[in-house]
Amino acid sequence: MLKQPIPTKIYLSEEEMPKAWYNLRADMEKLPPLLNPKTRKPCTQEELEAIFSKGCVAQELNDTDRYISIPDDIRDFYTMYRPSPLVRAYWLEKALGTPAEIYYKSEGNNTSGSHKLNSAVAQAYYAKKEGITSLTTETGAGQWGTALSMACAFYNIDLTVYMVKVSSEQKPFRREVMRTYGANVIPSPSETTNIGREILKKHPGTGGSLGCAISEAVEVATSTPNCRYGLGSVLNHVLLHQSVIGLEAKIALEKYGVKPDIIIGCAGGGSNLGGLIAPFMGEKLRGEQDYRFIAVEPKSCPSLTRGKYVYDFGDTGRITPLMKMYTLGHDFIPSANHSGGLRYHGMNPVISALYDQGHMEATSVEQTRVFEAATLFAKTEGILPAPESSHAIRVAIDEALKCKESGEKKVILFGLTGTGYFDLTAYKNFNDKTMVDYVPTDEEIEQSLAKIQD
Amino acid sequence: MLKQPIPTKIYLSEEEMPKAWYNLRADMEKLPPLLNPKTRKPCTQEELEAIFSKGCVAQELNDTDRYISIPDDIRDFYTMYRPSPLVRAYWLEKALGTPAEIYYKSEGNNTSGSHKLNSAVAQAYYAKKEGITSLTTETGAGQWGTALSMACAFYNIDLTVYMVKVSSEQKPFRREVMRTYGANVIPSPSETTNIGREILKKHPGTGGSLGCAISEAVEVATSTPNCRYGLGSVLNHVLLHQSVIGLEAKIALEKYGVKPDIIIGCAGGGSNLGGLIAPFMGEKLRGEQDYRFIAVEPKSCPSLTRGKYVYDFGDTGRITPLMKMYTLGHDFIPSANHSGGLRYHGMNPVISALYDQGHMEATSVEQTRVFEAATLFAKTEGILPAPESSHAIRVAIDEALKCKESGEKKVILFGLTGTGYFDLTAYKNFNDKTMVDYVPTDEEIEQSLAKIQD
Repeated sequence: MLKQPIPTKIYLSEEEMPKAWYNLRADMEKLPPLLNPKTRKPCTQEELEAIFSKGCVAQELNDTDRYISIPDDIRDFYTMYRPSPLVRAYWLEKALGTPAEIYYKSEGNNTSGSHKLNSAVAQAYYAKKEGITSLTTETGAGQWGTALSMACAFYNIDLTVYMVKVSSEQKPFRREVMRTYGANVIPSPSETTNIGREILKKHPGTGGSLGCAISEAVEVATSTPNCRYGLGSVLNHVLLHQSVIGLEAKIALEKYGVKPDIIIGCAGGGSNLGGLIAPFMGEKLRGEQDYRFIAVEPKSCPSLTRGKYVYDFGDTGRITPLMKMYTLGHDFIPSANHSGGLRYHGMNPVISALYDQGHMEATSVEQTRVFEAATLFAKTEGILPAPESSHAIRVAIDEALKCKESGEKKVILFGLTGTGYFDLTAYKNFNDKTMVDYVPTDEEIEQSLAKIQD
Repeated sequence: MLKQPIPTKIYLSEEEMPKAWYNLRADMEKLPPLLNPKTRKPCTQEELEAIFSKGCVAQELNDTDRYISIPDDIRDFYTMYRPSPLVRAYWLEKALGTPAEIYYKSEGNNTSGSHKLNSAVAQAYYAKKEGITSLTTETGAGQWGTALSMACAFYNIDLTVYMVKVSSEQKPFRREVMRTYGANVIPSPSETTNIGREILKKHPGTGGSLGCAISEAVEVATSTPNCRYGLGSVLNHVLLHQSVIGLEAKIALEKYGVKPDIIIGCAGGGSNLGGLIAPFMGEKLRGEQDYRFIAVEPKSCPSLTRGKYVYDFGDTGRITPLMKMYTLGHDFIPSANHSGGLRYHGMNPVISALYDQGHMEATSVEQTRVFEAATLFAKTEGILPAPESSHAIRVAIDEALKCKESGEKKVILFGLTGTGYFDLTAYKNFNDKTMVDYVPTDEEIEQSLAKIQD
């Protein structure tokens, strides 16, 4: 809004962009290690390097260096769509009539439509550097698959995306974006892998699942020469790459002398939330500043708020390393919910530990309340938000309304992870008033948790 | 790209945003007036005010004031998504190996996905100011309907959008964005108007046309109290609003001492092209600078390159004022082409006159060559472009390749009007190699032109 001391959008210059990622683990208590699923002993570097690029494995295992340089080549790629704007939500504040100041870091201004590209480019870069000629991955909603397709097109790396079959049928447009970027998109389960063939034999006509798609992608990566696997969230190196979100937000706020009181992010696998809060949480852990952090998850998949902090598998197929994390159990099947990016049974280990140690809060919201917030945001701020991001919007609005009651002028920062241009089936559902809220019963969660072999 | 004298993206500050639109007509020879379709006499202000808001009519008729202030309220709204970035296409230049410098003004960073919002907000603002409580419009591809929905949601004006029936069936997601912004979207032809009912009686089961949707929207606007009609292109006040594109681009280039040699825009109704070139063309007309301007149209709908410069109707239903323009005839039905925004039989009168007077060039391109360019652009610059915008990309690439041959280091500026997130059926068609190029025969064009009663 014009004639305000703080502009509506704060853009950093390219020189002001972070030159290093911030590794939050360096300021945390040591995390429990990843465990080999067969031996239950800590995963070795070599074991991980059979799956991921060496560059990513080194970062996954690095819990001592506070800053890790961003290679020039990656920073170059970042200039294609970064720095992303930090937006002062003047119009939303006005619509709410709140004395609170609301800011959001807007990550959707690229064709993948989300923050996922921040890690995709890093994963493709290290692969290229190490002579890896092809990557595999899985995708559900399609944002991660699109992001990795864009990065692989840029670095001229072959990419095979196992897309959950039901998603590839429901979201043919997402599939088409990936194809335009040259990716080979295979509906999963497929006949191209042993695991896929087995599942198809047992469950002919199945629509697939993320767990199955992960299994297929990992099988191909580990059995093909010069091929590795890329993951879009959950792991700590992904969280590291996403720290660019929080670093940029912090620099932008500091330019105008603004300190947030509350920092809010939606939580699926945890990479966006972890990236957004990282540098602020670092200050809190070092005792330099205090902030309130709120993770927002869907009521239908409440890993932090109703899960258990134990070792569990990252996939339903039990082939990934075991992680100590908040989990609903690797067998948990979240009920139909339109936020595909938040339908994961577990949570990144860093976020899990921070929550367990009381450094942050978590809450869960119903999807109808999420879409109410999304619609208000679209009308006032002019951006149609992704359903995932709208979880953060919902809680930011709730906190701003509390300020309206109390008269407090708090500063709220939230992460707008992406746009909802490929989520219009969900919006239609909401506009038609046919949207239903799903909440798992205590019994369902207990049953799923009971299957974890702790 | 880092460490370059010119950043990848040039953003103006909010203070640097233009405070006035530039009215190119003030620097041109007088244009032939709009004619009343019944009397064939120049349209009076009163006649136009029955259809459009007074603010828009005043601008439509103003060919003397070189600058027209942008009201603060509109500039405020502009800060929601403007200034839009001027991007140096370093990656595309590198991929082409050209010595040319390529810049593009990127207008797709808002939920309407295009430049259309620049005029939508102005039209909604004047309506609100004059106590108009509802607007009607038509939409084909959906970008204009979305833009006006966003503006009307912001100003709390009721909006009815007549959407070409076949488009509303093929693009249910576009329809859903409009509904999310509160618009009443009616597939056209419909039972809600006399014209609609007549057409349905004559042609039951028809998929509709833009001409018919315009007729329905105008009928409702002129027969409902406090209701007016909004148009997304073709008219001169729309072109005026779009001058913000060229003004921002010029300020951004001048900050770095860059003068473009060639300015390229896609041409459908002409508003984006006219807005982009306006301030540069003004300099050329005043003899202050020289530039090459190139309008790019689809080979399937070549109004400038194969049409006639005569008075013609703006719609197939013959109810709009007559305009002196390049036209293929109001009965011309462009063959199936994926650039919905470029399927218009005529061309804005300003652009038509400039072309007729030799101040600019025009060329036409086949859609397969357009999608080749779009795909290269997506892979190198990270933005999936709209099919319409990709016409400009095609010719920018062709000009850059000529520079490669000649060794000339020309500066090329083109307009990237929007993103292609709702055009994935077209991309699928291209990826599947089933895309066909349609070019009307001389006979077809002659037959259509013969129906114009000059």
